[in-house]
Amino acid sequence: MSKVIFGVDLGGTTVKMGYFDTEGNVKEKWEIPTRKENNGSRILPDIAASIKAKMSEMGMEKDDVIGVGIGVPGPVDAKGVIYKAANLGWDVFSVKEELAVLLGGIPVEAGNDANVAALGEMWRGGGCGYKNLVAVTLGTGVGGGIIVEGKILTGATGAGGEIGHIHIADDEPDACGCGNHGCLEQYASATGVSRLARRRLEADDKPSVLRNGDVSAKAVFDAVKAGDSVAIEVAKEFGRYLGKGLAAVACVVNPEIFVIGGGVSKAGEVLFGYIVDEYKKYVFRGSRDVRFALATLGNDAGIYGAAKLVLDLNIV
Amino acid sequence: MSKVIFGVDLGGTTVKMGYFDTEGNVKEKWEIPTRKENNGSRILPDIAASIKAKMSEMGMEKDDVIGVGIGVPGPVDAKGVIYKAANLGWDVFSVKEELAVLLGGIPVEAGNDANVAALGEMWRGGGCGYKNLVAVTLGTGVGGGIIVEGKILTGATGAGGEIGHIHIADDEPDACGCGNHGCLEQYASATGVSRLARRRLEADDKPSVLRNGDVSAKAVFDAVKAGDSVAIEVAKEFGRYLGKGLAAVACVVNPEIFVIGGGVSKAGEVLFGYIVDEYKKYVFRGSRDVRFALATLGNDAGIYGAAKLVLDLNIV
Repeated sequence: MSKVIFGVDLGGTTVKMGYFDTEGNVKEKWEIPTRKENNGSRILPDIAASIKAKMSEMGMEKDDVIGVGIGVPGPVDAKGVIYKAANLGWDVFSVKEELAVLLGGIPVEAGNDANVAALGEMWRGGGCGYKNLVAVTLGTGVGGGIIVEGKILTGATGAGGEIGHIHIADDEPDACGCGNHGCLEQYASATGVSRLARRRLEADDKPSVLRNGDVSAKAVFDAVKAGDSVAIEVAKEFGRYLGKGLAAVACVVNPEIFVIGGGVSKAGEVLFGYIVDEYKKYVFRGSRDVRFALATLGNDAGIYGAAKLVLDLNIV
Repeated sequence: MSKVIFGVDLGGTTVKMGYFDTEGNVKEKWEIPTRKENNGSRILPDIAASIKAKMSEMGMEKDDVIGVGIGVPGPVDAKGVIYKAANLGWDVFSVKEELAVLLGGIPVEAGNDANVAALGEMWRGGGCGYKNLVAVTLGTGVGGGIIVEGKILTGATGAGGEIGHIHIADDEPDACGCGNHGCLEQYASATGVSRLARRRLEADDKPSVLRNGDVSAKAVFDAVKAGDSVAIEVAKEFGRYLGKGLAAVACVVNPEIFVIGGGVSKAGEVLFGYIVDEYKKYVFRGSRDVRFALATLGNDAGIYGAAKLVLDLNIV
């Protein structure tokens, strides 16, 4: 039997799982619930049991499995130690070692979920063919995953790629979830786009379909596509903040490509019209010709990247 | 004879050179002029001749030399190719290969000078003991060198660590050397500190020793140490910009330590009082406890880092 790798993407509600061949083709995908009771102590045993059940179902032996990769929602260092994951009830411990023990010694690699998803997009998604990449997830917040020469940039305490918290505006009265004021996330996340829309609508009485009540990021970009001039103003403001933020990122890591994913990215390539010109206005010339692409793996990026995490550390 | 490594720091006026043992102890240092005539075509032959002369003088054979590292003032990619160095007259070519040929096949590694200096500070300077480090050079401009897990972050086109060109202010009327407006370099370099001082002096008639005519960065920080309240206002403004810029850098790469060098850093630890609080105000909590240290190798950082560049790629 040809060898396989398991990829696990641990979320706050469900655990996405899959197994792959060494070329990155997914052979099967499934989900189990994330049981957070008792400080999340059931989570890793549940994952191990599910992997063992799948191995048994498919007639896989331990030697058929190169390893198991897992992305977790919190800071993870280069050794696979997580530094607290509040929404799972987890404290500091080695996810890598604990899951390996539960799996009877199958090798495990662990990483932060956003970083691991970036690796997935590099391997088989919107960043395929590149090895210096920044993945930007515009969802409830703004997440980032930085890949340098094909490897995740983890950072000293697992906080590498926290680009949603780059300070981008000095005049923000509201606090970000992190406690600071004026973080990129406050303007470029789905929530951020809605805030910008509400502020714009309050500024005057200019007609707009957004006055119907739905100011979600989807409604804003739908209105943009329909030519709504208020929505276009909101999109320009979003692009100004995000372009400026990504320019700062590029001055630091000088990537080949930005891969944009998350809910806001469902608006599609229309986004780039608002981001790229602003980016070019603020970035250092050496990073001006970076590419922008949409993420293509959606919610599967995490399991792909988790599998790749294992593959990178094992010569097959 | 124990093996040695040559380190070369190519500047616009002089070439600094030295050779080292494998522990990073410098055995001898010297300089030769940088001859920029004929589009800088004499520079590498001059360097090769100087190395060969030193080898001959010291009775070194080719096998005694592990390699030669060189830092050059321009973007250099991971393969040792320089993408133009305007002030040397250089176009695109492989510094690594060309110098290796001139040296009869001694292995050569090449890097950008700021990045190489960062590696030097990590090896034997202010960042000794750390492997995730950002070196910040506050000189005529603001340079940066980023080390991730002990390796230089080069970037896709050699423009990694160009932190002086992070956009930090929206209201800047003057253009930066790069053509943009509001780059970190316009406020936090030696030149930037002078600009801030001149602007502050023009704002009103408040007495200050800086009104004597010398508004160099040195004069500003000397005045700060003497308790001059106008100079202290200037230092606070400098710290606000630099703290904010370094916070953005930390949100991207999450280093263990910032090592501050360059002319402005000669003011000493007094700088940190102005930088660190502002940094903490703007940075993501995961990067709040980063260390700040002064660079200690001064103008020798480049030759140390150039030697280390060779050592990292050769098992001794």
